Formats: sequence, structure tokens, C-alpha cells
Amino acid sequence: MITLKMTLRRMLSERRRSNNKLSRALSSSQIHHASRTTWSPPLVSLDLLDDCSSTFTHSHAAPIQKCTNDNARIIDGRSAAEEIKSSIAIEVSRMKESIGKVPGLAVILVGRGQDSLAYVRNKIMACHEVGFKFSIAELPENCTEEEVCDALSNYNKDASIHGILVQLPLPQHFDAGKILNVLSLEKDVDGFHTLNIGNLAIQGREPLFIPCTAKGCIELLLRSDVEIVGKRAVVIGRSNIVGLPTFLLLQRHHATVSIVHAYSENPEIIAREADILVAAAGVPNLVRGSWLKPGAVVLDVGINPIEDPESEHGYRLIGDVCFKEAVRIASAVTPVPGGVGPMTVAMLLLNTLEAAKRALHFP
Amino acid sequence: MITLKMTLRRMLSERRRSNNKLSRALSSSQIHHASRTTWSPPLVSLDLLDDCSSTFTHSHAAPIQKCTNDNARIIDGRSAAEEIKSSIAIEVSRMKESIGKVPGLAVILVGRGQDSLAYVRNKIMACHEVGFKFSIAELPENCTEEEVCDALSNYNKDASIHGILVQLPLPQHFDAGKILNVLSLEKDVDGFHTLNIGNLAIQGREPLFIPCTAKGCIELLLRSDVEIVGKRAVVIGRSNIVGLPTFLLLQRHHATVSIVHAYSENPEIIAREADILVAAAGVPNLVRGSWLKPGAVVLDVGINPIEDPESEHGYRLIGDVCFKEAVRIASAVTPVPGGVGPMTVAMLLLNTLEAAKRALHFP
Repeated sequence: MITLKMTLRRMLSERRRSNNKLSRALSSSQIHHASRTTWSPPLVSLDLLDDCSSTFTHSHAAPIQKCTNDNARIIDGRSAAEEIKSSIAIEVSRMKESIGKVPGLAVILVGRGQDSLAYVRNKIMACHEVGFKFSIAELPENCTEEEVCDALSNYNKDASIHGILVQLPLPQHFDAGKILNVLSLEKDVDGFHTLNIGNLAIQGREPLFIPCTAKGCIELLLRSDVEIVGKRAVVIGRSNIVGLPTFLLLQRHHATVSIVHAYSENPEIIAREADILVAAAGVPNLVRGSWLKPGAVVLDVGINPIEDPESEHGYRLIGDVCFKEAVRIASAVTPVPGGVGPMTVAMLLLNTLEAAKRALHFP
Repeated sequence: MITLKMTLRRMLSERRRSNNKLSRALSSSQIHHASRTTWSPPLVSLDLLDDCSSTFTHSHAAPIQKCTNDNARIIDGRSAAEEIKSSIAIEVSRMKESIGKVPGLAVILVGRGQDSLAYVRNKIMACHEVGFKFSIAELPENCTEEEVCDALSNYNKDASIHGILVQLPLPQHFDAGKILNVLSLEKDVDGFHTLNIGNLAIQGREPLFIPCTAKGCIELLLRSDVEIVGKRAVVIGRSNIVGLPTFLLLQRHHATVSIVHAYSENPEIIAREADILVAAAGVPNLVRGSWLKPGAVVLDVGINPIEDPESEHGYRLIGDVCFKEAVRIASAVTPVPGGVGPMTVAMLLLNTLEAAKRALHFP
């Protein structure tokens, strides 16, 4: 069987040249860059008393924008992610020089679903770019829950691995909740452990890790100078992986949040109330221009492949938001690809770096 | 020191007559009543696929209503709670006769805050009414976290205690989260353990216990024939005890939920979108008639004492909703007192009964 590892060896060798470029950049002019990159402030600092009026302001990097001929500015997730990865790479170099160790990320991959393979491939490449150790346990589709838990337990015990993720979705015969809870809380860089979700929901608590897509969305808002406190946010879709944590995180950042799902009556009316709209339903072009309040900020989490004979691979990716309509009505919008997607991977790296720093007591 | 226990001994003796009445009722005509009382269906059964339209209907008891001269029907939480308590008492009798055991509830009370004393008093009375064992650990305001955790650990180990609750709020120098997590998950009848909140948030999971006020609110909606699926619900207030779990539970019942808090801009406009409004801000008369959509169902969780020289004790309780305005605009409304409050206590008893049944393997 040609494993993912073998495929990746080839891809990684092809990427060497561009990575060398990144290394050179890191070792020279960008070396002071890390301190300029700000990441979401810790949650507990945001738990303001509910009986006073809002005076909270975020510190943030310069807004990310490109000009277009339409109204909306395009929130460029790719360049934000590159910036964050550069900062992470600097931290990894510092760690390696100082204590001779690097952060390690492990992925458990069950089966060979094309989407999962693509996502894992991106994660491996990203780890390589920033200098993380990467390990993968590939298990066949028909493996048992026990085998998955064994692989997890091995990584739990492995001191060179600081972050572990189980690539979701798992085949239907698995109890994902049971498996995710076997994962060591300190290595749960996806933030899906029940205790992490519980601590994200409960005011005054701080989860060890915040789920990556939700964290990436907030990061883009903060970097784009979007005010969150007190604003109306609508999350379309309530998956455990994206919709729920994004709702919880926006709420912790003091937005007034509504969550829309397949049972919601008049979703377009609710969406139109949003100052900040997060589309995470997995339905191509679900959100039309008529769903948007003029001036809204739109984060499109959808990644939907659609046939396109003119594209190199016969298909292209589109989001949940009808982009060409959105740019005429929104004040800012993320593109697909190149919006939230790259930020999700960057946040995974960031969570893994944090896990490694915690485990190694590295400041 | 006159302890709460001593005060209660007197109160309990005064209540004996009314309790005898309840016992007589249970032993005769109401004996077949338990099967008629329906409680919220388990959550997992509600996790419908998000890609189909709503066809879900609840089984429920007859709607609870009284006629008034105004428009709204009054959702009578007191009589619903009595009905549930009667059913619980029957179950307790059955358990006692069958295995010689009864459910046991323990409360940890730190300090002697007047509100906490009143709430604990209600819980003791309710336990007595339905035939539960009750135990209380009273600790002084200046006790240490360790002493609270010791008391908790003792109850964790005590096989005659099936439910434990820590009366909140704790004095400010305590880390409530840390203390609540010492509590055995199987005895967390308040449902505030991080794992219980996490499992309430995550679709497809079922928490061992659902927080009592949230559960009481849903129970009142179901019993009052209020459709929840797809409807817009607004929760005002986002406390960890009421607002957050009520939001999560309404969401699990497929409402489209928004959560409003002190930082929300234009709360009255958002409230006016609600088909179901839950007011849990702790601000007397916050929700005026102008905050309500005509025909909305209003659940008032607030219990605010205000001075009233004409009342026996010099004060009376009012809710977060301006009742006299609400009855003219809403289609149904809970009064204060006599609405959500009694249901909270009934749900605590129900959670404790469930805990005992689980621990004792009693069907």
C-alpha cells in the first residue's frame, strides 16, 4: 500500500526550495517579527463583569485588507496564516537552540477518505514548514475502536509528541466522543475533549485549547479591526467541530450570538441581522447577497468542491457564501480558498506550540 | 449557633400535616399518576440530522393554564411541580418497598447568606415531602477550599447519598470550578460539572444531569404545548447556572437561540424577535411589555426581593419581567413566585431520583 507518508515524502522534497526561502527569511530580517504578531487574548481576561457597560478594546495587529473593485475588503487568511507560521518557526528555532527540542504533532488517520487525506496532507506540510516533528498513525477503515485508542495511548505516553489529533470524521461505527476523551487533555490541540469544550462554554474558565477553526475566525476578526463586543453575530451551522465552538468563542468575546441550523425558520432573516456572519453549514453558496446586512463582516468556513472542467483537477473549491454577491454588500469577507482554511491550520500549529511550551516549561 | 438543621426541625414539624395529606393522596387515588407525568425526552433522541426538515413532535402532558382577564395564559409552575413531586414520591415508595432504600441528597452550604439559606430550606422541605434522605454540611464563611473538598469527598464516598450539590454562590475567595469538579460526576445533580456542561453542549452526547432551572424551563414549555423546534428563543442573561445551560438545552431542542447579556446592543430589539423568551438577568422588571413580540411565551427566571411595607415580611418577590405588562402582550407567561422557581426544585428531586436509580440499578 502506498501510504500517505510515502506520498508526502515526494511532496516534501518538492517543497524544499520554498521552505529554504522561509528559513532564510526567518534567520534574517523577520527575526524580530514574533513580538509584533498578536494572538487572541486569553479568555479569562475577557470575562468582564456583566453589570457594567462595554469599555473593552483589543490590542491587535494592523487590519488585513486588499482593495477590490467591489465594496468589501477581502480578509486575506492566507497571508495572516503565513505571518503566524513565520512567528511560530522563530519560536521553534529558539526552542531548538535553547533546549534541543521541537514541538511534535501526531495525527491518527482512520481510513483513506479523500477529504481527510487532503486535510492531513496540509497539516504535514505546515508542520514541516515551521520545523515541528510530525508523526502519523494510519489505520484501516475497518479497524477497531480499541486499535484507535491504543494508537492514542501510545502518543499520550510519547514525550516527543505534544499535540495529538484524531482526523474527523471517523467512520460511522466509531464512538468519536469516547475516543476523543482517551486523548490526554494536555495534548488535545484540536480542543474537542469534553473538558475543553466545557471550559470554553463556562464563563470564568479557560480551556487548555480552543478549537482551531473557531480560534482562526476570531483571530481574523481581531486582525481585521472588527469590533466584536456587543455586536450581533450569527453562526450558520452547529457542528461540534466548527459551529458550536465558534458560537461559544464569539460569546466569550462578548458578541450577542445566535446560532442558525437546519431547523431554523427564516434563516435568511436571522442572517440579515448579523454584524458578523460565520457561515459553516457545508452548503455551497447557501448565503446569498440577500442574506447579508449591508456592511456585515462575513467569515466563510465552507470548503465545497464543485465540478469545473476548466480547472486543472476538474473541480474547484467554493464556500458557503456566494462570494460575488457578498463582496457587493458586506464590508469585509473571507475568500474560499485562502480565508478561514489556512488560519485553521495556523491555529493548530499555534495550539501545538503552546502545548509543547507547557509540557517543556519553555517560556 | 442555631444551625439551619435546627430551624428546619421546627418548620418540618409544622409541615407534617400538609405532608400527611400528600402521603394520603399518594397511597390512594393518585397511585397510577406517575405514568401520566411525562418528563423531557432524553437529549440524544433529539439529535435529528440537520439536513432534513422538522418533523419532530413531543409527547407531553396537557397544557397547564389558568384563565385571566388579560390575554396571556399563566403557566402555573407550582402545580406542575406538585404533580412531578407526587410522581417522584410514588417512585420513592416503590423503591423503599422493593429494595428498602430511598434516594439521598446532600447539600454543602458555606456561610449563611440569606438567599442561600432560603434556597436550601426549600430543598430540604422538598426532600422531606417526597421521602428522600437529606443531609447537609454547614461550613463557616471563612472555611478553606480544602474543608469544602473534604466534605464533598465524604459525600462522594457515602453510598446512602446519590446526589450532592454545592449551594452557589460560594464566597468570593473560592475557586468554584475546582470545587465542583471534585464532586463525583454520578452525583452531580445540579449538572454543573465541566463534563456535564460539555456533554450538554456537544451534539450527540447525553449529560448525566441537566442543570435544574434549564430543565425546568423546557419542562414547562413541553407541558404547556409550546412548540420549540425551529422557533426563535432568546435567553437574557448568560450565567453559568441558568443562562448558559438554558441556551444549550433550547439549542438541543432545536430552537434558534440567541443569548443577550450586559454588553448586547439594543437588547429590547433582540428580545422582541423571540417566540420564546427566557429572562434570567436578575434585574427586577427589566423586560417591559415593549420588549415582547405579541404572542411570545415568556419564562421569568428572576427572583428579586423588593421592599413592600404591605407584605407580611416587609418585602415581596418580583421577576425580571414586568408581569402586568407581559400578560397583555405575551401568549403565556410564568408568574413570580410560582413559575420557574418551584420547577427548579422539582427538577433537582428528579435528577436525584435518577441518580439513585442509576446507582442502585433500580428500574
